[in-house]
Amino acid sequence: MALREPDCLFCKIVAGEVPAEIVREGERTVAFRDINPQAPTHVLIIPKDHYRDAAAAGRAGRGVLDEIAVAAEEVAKAEGVAANGFRLVFNTGPGAGQTVFHVHGHLLGGRGLEWPPG
Amino acid sequence: MALREPDCLFCKIVAGEVPAEIVREGERTVAFRDINPQAPTHVLIIPKDHYRDAAAAGRAGRGVLDEIAVAAEEVAKAEGVAANGFRLVFNTGPGAGQTVFHVHGHLLGGRGLEWPPG
Repeated sequence: MALREPDCLFCKIVAGEVPAEIVREGERTVAFRDINPQAPTHVLIIPKDHYRDAAAAGRAGRGVLDEIAVAAEEVAKAEGVAANGFRLVFNTGPGAGQTVFHVHGHLLGGRGLEWPPG
Repeated sequence: MALREPDCLFCKIVAGEVPAEIVREGERTVAFRDINPQAPTHVLIIPKDHYRDAAAAGRAGRGVLDEIAVAAEEVAKAEGVAANGFRLVFNTGPGAGQTVFHVHGHLLGGRGLEWPPG
């Protein structure tokens, strides 16, 4: 049973209560397509456990972000975008564009990626 | 002694052989300013150990990315950009803009951050 926050949209996706186009499910992570994709591959990778943001997940000291990075590469390979490179982005706080406060890495690939990253 | 790759620029920064404007050093991570900053705060956070990219660090299963996320928040707080939000970006592969093959998280903050992230 995952650590859960009652009103969290992503916790509901983990629990199967809200639909999402899931592309990969691991023991501790779930990956699903962003509903407003910004690249041919734009997948969100989240831990099943609820942490507000990347630092909160990191402070838990359970290797959650390590697993998200591995899952991101696996999704990128499965989508055929790994060879050309991909980006993994964590937003912290509304000013950075974080809208759901359950940590999620944005995997983007399948097109040229500009710099700066927003 | 950190896991080291002989010709890696960032390993040389870790070893103090190449100068960098270091803003935070932890037991396993170092944070220093990007030489081509894209935001008022643009800091690179790296593990002292050499891993080619985020997935390689993740596969090591040592919590390296967890520590990078925690360090990123600490740097963001120290720079006064945490409250307004910040972004942490990992590029994997030349097509995503990765130019140094020692995993590094780009912390960006201190200005509005657009979407998409590049």
